[in-house]
Amino acid sequence: MIVGVLGGGQLGRMLALAGHRLGVRVRCFDPDAEACAGQVTELVVGDYGDTAALGRLIDDCDAVTYEFENVPIEAAAWCAERVETHPAITALAAAQDRMEEKALLRAHGLEPVPHMLVESEPQLREAVEAIGLPAVLKTCRGGYDGKGQVVLREAVDIPTAWAELGGAGGERVRLVLEGFIAFSREISLLTVRGKGGEVRHYDPVCNEHEGGILVRSHPAGEAADPAELDRVRAGVASLMAGLGYVGVLAVELFERPDGRGGGRLSANEMAPRVHNSGHWTIDAAACSQFENHLRAVLGLPLGSTRTICTWEMRNLIGHIPAAEELLSEEGLRLHAYGKAEKAGRKVGHVTVVGE
Amino acid sequence: MIVGVLGGGQLGRMLALAGHRLGVRVRCFDPDAEACAGQVTELVVGDYGDTAALGRLIDDCDAVTYEFENVPIEAAAWCAERVETHPAITALAAAQDRMEEKALLRAHGLEPVPHMLVESEPQLREAVEAIGLPAVLKTCRGGYDGKGQVVLREAVDIPTAWAELGGAGGERVRLVLEGFIAFSREISLLTVRGKGGEVRHYDPVCNEHEGGILVRSHPAGEAADPAELDRVRAGVASLMAGLGYVGVLAVELFERPDGRGGGRLSANEMAPRVHNSGHWTIDAAACSQFENHLRAVLGLPLGSTRTICTWEMRNLIGHIPAAEELLSEEGLRLHAYGKAEKAGRKVGHVTVVGE
Repeated sequence: MIVGVLGGGQLGRMLALAGHRLGVRVRCFDPDAEACAGQVTELVVGDYGDTAALGRLIDDCDAVTYEFENVPIEAAAWCAERVETHPAITALAAAQDRMEEKALLRAHGLEPVPHMLVESEPQLREAVEAIGLPAVLKTCRGGYDGKGQVVLREAVDIPTAWAELGGAGGERVRLVLEGFIAFSREISLLTVRGKGGEVRHYDPVCNEHEGGILVRSHPAGEAADPAELDRVRAGVASLMAGLGYVGVLAVELFERPDGRGGGRLSANEMAPRVHNSGHWTIDAAACSQFENHLRAVLGLPLGSTRTICTWEMRNLIGHIPAAEELLSEEGLRLHAYGKAEKAGRKVGHVTVVGE
Repeated sequence: MIVGVLGGGQLGRMLALAGHRLGVRVRCFDPDAEACAGQVTELVVGDYGDTAALGRLIDDCDAVTYEFENVPIEAAAWCAERVETHPAITALAAAQDRMEEKALLRAHGLEPVPHMLVESEPQLREAVEAIGLPAVLKTCRGGYDGKGQVVLREAVDIPTAWAELGGAGGERVRLVLEGFIAFSREISLLTVRGKGGEVRHYDPVCNEHEGGILVRSHPAGEAADPAELDRVRAGVASLMAGLGYVGVLAVELFERPDGRGGGRLSANEMAPRVHNSGHWTIDAAACSQFENHLRAVLGLPLGSTRTICTWEMRNLIGHIPAAEELLSEEGLRLHAYGKAEKAGRKVGHVTVVGE
């Protein structure tokens, strides 16, 4: 069996490694000939508009998927017309636009944080008045890892924030202002849905960010309110069923502090793909998110999402510490992505496993 | 970092996959262009006597190792003269000859089963008289997975057994007759030794064979006598230190039933490499035998050999069952080797992990 993957970054690389183990060939596609998945599997190099190159990707493929939500819709749609492509293009489209994403989440009972569409500086002023400060202004499209967003702390920040994200050029820009909500933790839920509609959830994960980049994940554990978790999981399952979603979906949530909402979970965003906060599953779940994503898109039985040991995941950002030092930590599993070191770039992660 | 591996079968493939995760390039060498490691990593194709091809293997390598003990000594020695090569050639030489192997094991307190060298039919008769029947006649060199051996149950089997293994052609042949000993279980010990001399043992494994081929492994658990285990582990550590051994070593042992020897462990054979009975470590140990072997030969800190969850390993022999059925088993992890299906051939394994 062969699976084509739009994107050849570390997520494509880890999909390929899961495929190697299963005897499934994973073929990645990337405009960059140095994309790190190419070190471990076949890589088709081409622009996303190059249908001859896309044709080489999908040749003999049993299924096509993608490893990042900013893959051009047209490229995914071109593949979907020719080969079964999962997750559904509608999920991809929704994930590419923060306003659409929030509407979709809300439609399935996953209440997003307070937010308003902003298309001009006066609209930004109105939104600040309605939502209050601090707040964060984000581009509706194209942002990731803290890029394409500005925090507003006082009203005087409005012109600068608008200039930074909305002011450049004469073209129409869609931004969204999101209110800061008090939250105790950021939690993510990873769920996989098979072609037959079966849904399996991984245990919830608690994430810590620095400068908008995930730095550390660990089990959310028993602190999460089980009833609230069940409610949110039902919402995620409903959202997936509504889209005919097949594969892994990540939903990021804010856990409200007990004093304000009783541990209620507000939806932040979703990613229609395998996700950084699920990397622990390679080392500490019965079946990893990568393998389960491949199983799902190929129509194979889903694997167990059960956690098999304690774990903590830390991203390696900018550079990989000297192996002599890093590998001395007991129970540490290194995942190096084979990427050039660069400030702010995710170049690897480690999972420390316990009993 | 780059590690060259003599041999491109499933062990080379799994070394390569461990390398991908660590960011270590593993380059395999095999006379067969279809060797299954080539599906997941760089493969140099050449005969073991082809020094130009061997030169391509070792180019820029930080270390060279091998994935089967029948690799021609000359090829390994050629590499060792040019690049650090582990485990030591002396270990490889001993493992290639059952008589040398037994002498080495005995020298370190690992008592082998009763055995005698057999170089003629009269010698076979003498050996049968000394050792008794049933017994098993084996070629000193070149056998694996039950090949190159014949079981003798009665004295009338002697001529047939000799004809099968010793009689062909006029060349001198070295065989060994091994007595059957009563044993309750076959146990294997996997041990890794680093360049600095540090030794780490994995938990002992109980193996089940059919027709000379390993079919199933599971944790030996508490049944093994701890004092006897400590004694054998000390012998293994002594053997490794004596050889300046670096990397993973597998030692197969027979556990005598309590009535005859009180759980004493007799050495059967050793393999100076990663071993089938250690495949479970990919899924159920903090650091797999493959990663630890790479860490050792590269002089990196050894990883934890601790077992992190319950497990059972089953070999897939001859063919891989339909994915739909196989993958339905909860907690099952499939490792497919990408090899053509053939009766008696190991084409994959599964590990079923528990809590």
